[in-house]
Formats: sequence, structure tokens, C-alpha cells
Amino acid sequence: MIYLDNSATTKPYKEVLDSFVTVSSEYFGNPSSLHSFGGQAEKLLSQAREQTAKLLDVKANEIYFTSGGTESNNLAIKGAAYKNRNRGKHLITSSVEHPSVRLAMEQLEEEGFEITYLPVDGNGRVSAEELEQAIRKDTILVSIMLVNNEVGTIQPVKEIGEVLKRHSTVLFHVDAIQGVGKVPLHLHEYGIDFCSFSGHKFHALKGTGILYVRDGIGITPLFSGGNQERKLRSGTENVAGAVAIAKALRMTLAKSPDRIGAMREIQSMLRTELSKNEFIRINTPADHAAPHIINFSLKGIKSEVFVHALEKEKIFVSTTSACSSKKKSASSTLIAMGLPEEIAESAIRLSLSFNNTVQEAVETISVIENTVKQLERVMK
Amino acid sequence: MIYLDNSATTKPYKEVLDSFVTVSSEYFGNPSSLHSFGGQAEKLLSQAREQTAKLLDVKANEIYFTSGGTESNNLAIKGAAYKNRNRGKHLITSSVEHPSVRLAMEQLEEEGFEITYLPVDGNGRVSAEELEQAIRKDTILVSIMLVNNEVGTIQPVKEIGEVLKRHSTVLFHVDAIQGVGKVPLHLHEYGIDFCSFSGHKFHALKGTGILYVRDGIGITPLFSGGNQERKLRSGTENVAGAVAIAKALRMTLAKSPDRIGAMREIQSMLRTELSKNEFIRINTPADHAAPHIINFSLKGIKSEVFVHALEKEKIFVSTTSACSSKKKSASSTLIAMGLPEEIAESAIRLSLSFNNTVQEAVETISVIENTVKQLERVMK
Repeated sequence: MIYLDNSATTKPYKEVLDSFVTVSSEYFGNPSSLHSFGGQAEKLLSQAREQTAKLLDVKANEIYFTSGGTESNNLAIKGAAYKNRNRGKHLITSSVEHPSVRLAMEQLEEEGFEITYLPVDGNGRVSAEELEQAIRKDTILVSIMLVNNEVGTIQPVKEIGEVLKRHSTVLFHVDAIQGVGKVPLHLHEYGIDFCSFSGHKFHALKGTGILYVRDGIGITPLFSGGNQERKLRSGTENVAGAVAIAKALRMTLAKSPDRIGAMREIQSMLRTELSKNEFIRINTPADHAAPHIINFSLKGIKSEVFVHALEKEKIFVSTTSACSSKKKSASSTLIAMGLPEEIAESAIRLSLSFNNTVQEAVETISVIENTVKQLERVMK
Repeated sequence: MIYLDNSATTKPYKEVLDSFVTVSSEYFGNPSSLHSFGGQAEKLLSQAREQTAKLLDVKANEIYFTSGGTESNNLAIKGAAYKNRNRGKHLITSSVEHPSVRLAMEQLEEEGFEITYLPVDGNGRVSAEELEQAIRKDTILVSIMLVNNEVGTIQPVKEIGEVLKRHSTVLFHVDAIQGVGKVPLHLHEYGIDFCSFSGHKFHALKGTGILYVRDGIGITPLFSGGNQERKLRSGTENVAGAVAIAKALRMTLAKSPDRIGAMREIQSMLRTELSKNEFIRINTPADHAAPHIINFSLKGIKSEVFVHALEKEKIFVSTTSACSSKKKSASSTLIAMGLPEEIAESAIRLSLSFNNTVQEAVETISVIENTVKQLERVMK
């Protein structure tokens, strides 16, 4: 098979799964236990935390292990909102965020918070200037993603960080789930207060995530209990999952310098070849785009039909985000980019990992072209 | 080593870990993906849900997969409280609940809810009659654990269920985390609306849990997002974790009829032999006690000192719950049972799994007796 749905989920690295198994079977103690067998587990957890912190160039006490990207996003946004509700009720986000950010915002809205959803330009980008204009006296949090999950647009996170340095009471959350290893991210330099990561998007395991919380920033926990993770996230720690996510992060970042060029070349080939087809419109912008996503629309072909046509050839791609793919609604990012409904309804996302090859891209292009021809013939 | 800290966490069954690996490496698709590779993952998830439902004798749409017991408890309690806040603000629980229930209640208290903490008798049991007396017109939820995690007391969950059938607007949550496979539980018959399970307490993996929510009962989610788990718990599903927890539940319940007698015998031997020692006081009640926990206190010896003395002999036990064990405070359950501080501060919990043997119990008794002798000599 040719798996081009890596923005939905990735295959865990074998070494990562091996570590998970070793820790689960040989160091299964509870890290909160007083005895040395629990202590061994606690040590592994600490090492995973330190390794993660080092890789992200932050402090170990700024790393919290969660059950995934959705938890990280919800914990940061709701946790910061509840913690600061006496200080203000206004939050700013974009109109192209992942559902786990957008719906967290909508839930807060129902609870009396006020949300500004910033528009994006034709490339799917928010403007740091417009963001600054949206800041009010009662603004407590800004949440902007690093890389859009549907089209791959890189948001001006660094510039937004600069803006927010002039508004020191406004906290800054970045959903970096789609960016890990593909787009530079400097948490301290950019002035980021919270940053979300999801393990299964970079070859770690489902059910694992990371939330970076800048030292000294308090948030209201979603889970109360045994006060693990320095009271921010109670629950027996998934030690094996933490070891696995730290290892996957290390492996991904280690591969990145070497492989990102090849990934860009594959993306570029897909863009060039597919754009030659008169029935295809490329939606991923040429500039400010992450190297792993190519989103395009097909004139007169519903994206669902196309996904199923490709899977017959053992090529796996997606429509919008996996989370939204069964709703059969148009891509919300493309609509926000100002594209017409028929384009948003016929969008296909190809998303690469470092494991995809040029040969796979060549084959995919050929299959896509044949499939378009066949479907066009049927449509006529 | 002799591992007698199974109420803190258990060793995953090899078969369970094997299934986790197979699913993670071969069926790593996102169950929300439109294509057949995601569809395979979704099918495995559905099967795990159906298997779990069948084992618990409930419907598949009443099973939700979570990241663990703490999430299940928080989701049930906070989710039910937020959902029903317009109907009432009063909740009832006991004074011997696990921190993930107690602190969830305390957080709700800070937010304006009112909580009644029912007292327990000398055996650590709440009274169904007292519980009924505590019900007010604005009571929305009762949360009582099945088995106390520190001393093993079985709460009168069936009787409470009977009481609550007369108060149909009061929802009933049971934290069954310590009871799985050891104590009978009939969710529908007992009139339970929410029930929490934690995978790593019955040989599944850390980071996995189950929440049973009775068909038709709505709760406010803690995680908003992609609307997985029928909108109650967003986030890409940990498919491998769900398959693993379903398998561990099946294996545990299958072993139960055969092994529970042996477990009771080991418990009984520990009770009989340890109670002969003049320095030891057994805290686990003789009646209404689960078969896997024996809690005792040591005259004049701090529990911490004793845990470390036993670990030198490769016997791993705990003080109170793992979650509380590093706080160095007295056992809250023993205090609630009316025992003096010195007894609560010197408590030791031995907790069994089906894998512990009579030979291990014999060895443990002998080591405990020698250790008590030595420490008593040092103390003098």
C-alpha cells in the first residue's frame, strides 16, 4: 500500500513500539509507589520528560504528558480560560483551527466567554496585525496553530509571539500537532506559553501526547486526583507511553534535517505534476506551507468518491481532517480561505511522512491521473 | 520479587501486550478515516467495544474508552454535574473515596456545588439508609466506590442502587476500579448510571480506561473536538489500547471463578498469621471485604520505614494508595474509619493479583515477622 494519510495518523516506529513493550512488561510499577520498583518507573518517566524537554529546548518542569493532542488542546485552552476567568473573558483564535481547538472555544462560548475567530487570507494565513487589533483589555488567551492540518499553511506564530510580547497579560497557546519535525518551532523564543503535541502524528502511539506549559503559568486541571504531573494532570502516568513519545520525538527530530529536503522534493513533484491536470486545483499555498501536505480539489468529483477510488489501488488519502472526514461536510479551512463550496467539497489531502518515497509519488500521480480520467468519463 | 502492590498497578498480561503490538503496528489507521485502512481500525475498535459490553452485560453504546480511571471518574462526576447544574447543585459521596473522586468533588465545591461526604462505620462502610437521608430535592448525583482501594471494604452498592430507584432524578456513579473480577457487579440490575474502570488495575495497559454511561444519559464532555466516542470523549481513539483492555477484561473475568477461591485463601492465611503478631493490627474488615487486599498497621513503626525494609527482601507493598503514598500523610480511609492517627500512619497494604501464590504468602509472612522483630529491637 501507499500510505499518504500521515496527517491523520502515522505508523509507530518499530523501535518506539519495542521500548513501549519493554517498559510495560519489565518496569510496570506505579511511579507514585514508594518502593524501588515504582521508583524505577518514576526514573524512566523523569528521563522521558528530560529528554523531551531537551529536544524542545525547554525545561523538564515545563513538560506534561497527556493522552493526546485533543487533551493537550482542551487542557491548555479550558485550563487557561478557567484559571483566568476573573481577569477576562475574551479569547482569540483563527477560523481554521482543528476541531479540538474550535469546539473547545465553542464550549467556552456557551459558558459565557467571548471568542474572536480571526479570518484567514486566500492562503489560509492569519495576520499578526489583525490579531493585534483584536486584542482587548479582557483578552486572556490567543490560540493559533503552527501548521494547518488540512492544507498545510504555516501560521505566523513567530510574529504573533512578537505581538504578544507587547501584551504581556495575554497568554499564547500553539497547537503544534501537525508541525513536529517539519516546521521550526522555538517555544521560548516565540514567547509561547502552551504548546500541544500528539504522539501518533509522529510515529509514537495513539493515546499519548505532550503539553508544554511555560514555567510559572498556572492552569485549572481537567482531571483532579492523585496530583500526578505536578497537580496539572492527575492519573497514573502512562510511563511506557511517555518513554515511547520521547523516543519518537528524538527519532523524528534526528531524521528531520536529512529527510526534509526529500520530503519537499516529493511535495514539489506532486504539486507540479498534479497542477498540470485541468481537472485539478491545488489548494495548498506555494509559500508558507509545511513540506508534508498537498491539498487539491477535483472539478466535479466529490472527495469521498475519489478517496474510495484510490483505495481500490491501495493508495490511502483523506478528504479533510480525519476527525471531520465522516461528516461529509465541506472543508472548513477551504471555506475560510474564501473558496467556493464545490471546491471545498471535492478536496483531497495527501500527507507525507519521512518514509514516503519518490517512487510512491510517481505511482500516486499516475493513479490519480487515471482515476480522474475514468471518473470524468463516468460523470459525462 | 514478590509483588504485592496490585492495587497500585498490575503487570500487563503477555497476550494483552501482544495484541496491543499487533494492532499498533499492523492496524495503525485512524478509525475516523474514510478509507478501508481506517475502516479496519474502526472495526477493531467496535469489536473491542462489543466485547467489553458483553462482558459487563450492557449495550455496546454504553461503553466509552478513556485514558484511565482518573479520567473516567472525572468525566462522570464533572460531566454529570455540569450537565445537570440547572437542575440541582448537590452531590453525595463518601469520605473514603479515591482522590480522583474526592478531588473532583472538591473542585466542584469551589465552583459552587454542594457536596455531602457520608461518614463510614468502623469497617469503612457507608450506610444506604444514611445515604437516603442525605438526599435533597436538588441532589443530582451520588458517587460511591465499589471497593475501597486502601482497606478493601466492599460498599453496599446494590443497596444504594435500590435506594436510588426510589429517587429517579438522582444519578448514580460507581468507581469500580478496585473491584473488577474480584467483586460481583451488575450495572443494569444495580441501577448504575456511570461506572469507572482502569485498565492497568486488571493487567491491561496504563493510559487506558472505560466509562460505562447508561443509554440515554447525557453528560458534558471534558474534551471537545473531533466528536469521537459519540461526542462524549473527543480525540483519536487509542484502538490498540481499547483492544488490549477488552482482552484483559475477558481474561480477568474468565480466570475469576477459578482463582478467586485461592485468592481468598491467601488473604485468609495472611490475616490469620499476621494477626497473631502482637505488634500488628489488621485494618481490613472480616466481612464485606474484597479478596485481594489486606491492610494492617504496625505498632510504633512508620509505614514508610516498613515498605523500605520489605523491599530489601524484594517484597513490594504499599502504604496507602499509590497516589497518596508520597505525601507521607496518614491514610484518609483509616482516619474516616475512626482509627487513631498512629494507626493510620503505620498502615501497610498488601494487594494480590490472581498470579500470587500461597508460597509467596508464606514467604511474605515470614519476612514480615522477622522485619517487625528487627525494627522493634531497633526502636527500643
